[in-house]
Amino acid sequence: MLENDQLAQWDRENFFHPSTPLGQFARGELNNRIVTGGKGVYIEDREGNKLLDAFAGLYCVNIGYGRQEIAEAIAAQAKELAYYHSYVGHGTEANITLAKMILDRAPDHMSKVYFGQSGSDANETNIKLVWYYNNVLGRPEKKKIISRWRGYHGSGLMTGSLTGLETFHNQFDLPLPYVVHTDAPYYFRRDNLGQSEAEFVKQCADNLDALIQKEGPDTIAAFIGEPVLGTGGIVPPPAGYWEAIQAVLNKYDILLIVDEVITGFGRLGSMFGSDHYGLKPDIMTIAKGLTSAYAPLSGSIVADRVWKVLEDGTDKYGAIGHGWTYSAHPIGAAAGVANLKLIDELKLVDNAKDTGAYFVQGLKDAVGDLPIVGDVRGEGIMAAVEFVKDKDSRTFFDPTDKIGYAVVGALLERHKVIGRAMPQGDILGFAPPLCMTKEEADTVIAATKDAIETVIAKL
Amino acid sequence: MLENDQLAQWDRENFFHPSTPLGQFARGELNNRIVTGGKGVYIEDREGNKLLDAFAGLYCVNIGYGRQEIAEAIAAQAKELAYYHSYVGHGTEANITLAKMILDRAPDHMSKVYFGQSGSDANETNIKLVWYYNNVLGRPEKKKIISRWRGYHGSGLMTGSLTGLETFHNQFDLPLPYVVHTDAPYYFRRDNLGQSEAEFVKQCADNLDALIQKEGPDTIAAFIGEPVLGTGGIVPPPAGYWEAIQAVLNKYDILLIVDEVITGFGRLGSMFGSDHYGLKPDIMTIAKGLTSAYAPLSGSIVADRVWKVLEDGTDKYGAIGHGWTYSAHPIGAAAGVANLKLIDELKLVDNAKDTGAYFVQGLKDAVGDLPIVGDVRGEGIMAAVEFVKDKDSRTFFDPTDKIGYAVVGALLERHKVIGRAMPQGDILGFAPPLCMTKEEADTVIAATKDAIETVIAKL
Repeated sequence: MLENDQLAQWDRENFFHPSTPLGQFARGELNNRIVTGGKGVYIEDREGNKLLDAFAGLYCVNIGYGRQEIAEAIAAQAKELAYYHSYVGHGTEANITLAKMILDRAPDHMSKVYFGQSGSDANETNIKLVWYYNNVLGRPEKKKIISRWRGYHGSGLMTGSLTGLETFHNQFDLPLPYVVHTDAPYYFRRDNLGQSEAEFVKQCADNLDALIQKEGPDTIAAFIGEPVLGTGGIVPPPAGYWEAIQAVLNKYDILLIVDEVITGFGRLGSMFGSDHYGLKPDIMTIAKGLTSAYAPLSGSIVADRVWKVLEDGTDKYGAIGHGWTYSAHPIGAAAGVANLKLIDELKLVDNAKDTGAYFVQGLKDAVGDLPIVGDVRGEGIMAAVEFVKDKDSRTFFDPTDKIGYAVVGALLERHKVIGRAMPQGDILGFAPPLCMTKEEADTVIAATKDAIETVIAKL
Repeated sequence: MLENDQLAQWDRENFFHPSTPLGQFARGELNNRIVTGGKGVYIEDREGNKLLDAFAGLYCVNIGYGRQEIAEAIAAQAKELAYYHSYVGHGTEANITLAKMILDRAPDHMSKVYFGQSGSDANETNIKLVWYYNNVLGRPEKKKIISRWRGYHGSGLMTGSLTGLETFHNQFDLPLPYVVHTDAPYYFRRDNLGQSEAEFVKQCADNLDALIQKEGPDTIAAFIGEPVLGTGGIVPPPAGYWEAIQAVLNKYDILLIVDEVITGFGRLGSMFGSDHYGLKPDIMTIAKGLTSAYAPLSGSIVADRVWKVLEDGTDKYGAIGHGWTYSAHPIGAAAGVANLKLIDELKLVDNAKDTGAYFVQGLKDAVGDLPIVGDVRGEGIMAAVEFVKDKDSRTFFDPTDKIGYAVVGALLERHKVIGRAMPQGDILGFAPPLCMTKEEADTVIAATKDAIETVIAKL
């Protein structure tokens, strides 16, 4: 393996990479990195580098790299039956078992799981289900979805519209008009620095109420949100936020879609973000942590009250006209079953809570007082450091200074630690595998301190 | 394995199956089938049934079931590195190699491949790329996509809108307004029975031209079509159709997206449908046959002229804001590499041509003269039998008679052969694995004759 010297060239000639400056990459102005293996929190590349991946791929390799138990489950399934479809009541032991395991872990009022391949397609399914639901209930006008600025819910045309980030809209004519956006629950970036957290929460809820009134409650089908904002900056909600938001939604009979793609299966130190914050979802979106990315699989978990209406609908209109060829793919299902078992056996939800708290506190202690650090925050095993030009006035850097990218670059080059420059703002993000140890956390913390100091020295 | 007696119950309690009447399934009024293994064209279920799958799952298990070479490639990849992302120039040996293998097989003017997970998300990517392309070229109004009635291009909100089938729109508020539909190239269902094939083709091209004129050529970005209509009825195009259509598109600078999800990698007895019909695609959609469904993987192959504009775009606007966490998933890529190698080694494209021709001719000979058979058609290893109440006047059955479903039911119950009742019309569809032998074709043909005669006897 990897004796092929042409790989790097083939890469530039044939491979259209996501989220990449295409011309620069094709012309060889941007490095490629060919990843060859991994174990625990580490990955290895063909140059022989061993890197500590403190972002778990894209917050998804929750179980850690190189888990042979999952590899063996995938191998066994591939040998036995790699594929059969799940249309019209077809199933396999793996996907039926996984459906049961998911419902056993989800809040009690959840009823059924629809499987897809990615978080994006699960949110696509969710919008379709919400529209169908309101058609069955005879409310054909109740169709718009409220999302939050800085939410991330996918990269498709509709799901990218739910996403409230400029980078994903730029030159793609998004968002489409079926989506309206409301405030990000981002207290650190509040307009009025004098505002208390409670005042800020009230403002979020009041603005949501006003938006619903303005659009017309009869036109709003659902609200979608991540328990903790992810790609928007890794921002835990201010205290009381979800309680206030849910009160508004209940007032207007608006469904709540909780996007648990990042938070599901342990990242917050709870099984789901919905448990963590006392949310009562009508639909939950799951992906990443479901299989720890060992195979593509996503899901939409539907609550009893939604399921009942869907049953009424198909009794009336016939089989539901929605399906992906790879819905409930056996390889993904086998990976999911092995992954969820291993999360339990290794007590990774507890570790996410304990080591996560240690990590977030360690980061605060180590870098909180550095001159360009405006905020250090986190929840479970997920953390962010946000940079500012001036702390007292909370003045942000000019985006063209690319401070976040500079810190991530220093972290990688000086310490072989992978963090992520979050796309909007100068924010260093961490979402390591749930199996990270305290010693590994210490490594990341020390590297972060040095990387920030290196960037400060060059300012 | 499968000693779990609760599986069937878990299935009904937890699993939301695609394209299923949900209430009937949950209440136990519809059978479930738990599939346990397969080999070649056969699958096995937990009841011990061995079924000849003449639809290859959902036209996707092109290589046949139980190929240990692919299972081993998946197993090796899972053990070595199950996942790393492909953002910002990251890759693995498997996905880089697969990109190269795809471009080696695609028409010469194709440049790069973007990987997704499903045909639906690949078409989602395609629309995004087409919109981006016209924004970079300074043509912000050129955004609508023309699709055909009876085309199938996915099950998402936008891709389900491209799909031109009632079943997939019903109660989902589709199609969305960004899509306009033109004629299905379905000569058998022409309005005017006296029309010649050449006249019908001219009408399709003229109607397309008129539609473009009506909408405004400056508003139409792309045309999408399957080389052979798939889910819309398995309908090869009339002679000269694609030549006439491409002439219209070229006249108005409209991009051609060729959806090769079903036809790619050999189903028509050619590597791609584009080769088969002399199409010059700007973008090609691939999925199913790329991995023979052993793992979820799809792709968008972009032509040189489109790629150049995308490079200009990212030079100007920065990294392209489009990505799926599971883009170019290593497990899917390893499956794809092994699958494409095996297709070559087993000469399955040739077999699709030879056995396909034998199968289609055999079906024509066996059932063409039966009283309710209106049309027997096929191309490569893909065929359909369409039923009519009266042959001379080409009168169709009432949809509530469900003749297509009755034939498929008889085929399964009497002969353990799986065909598919295509969703719109009374059409029995076949798309067996490319490895089907002539003996297996004979089995399917004889079973089909008996199944149709059984249904006729009950009329």
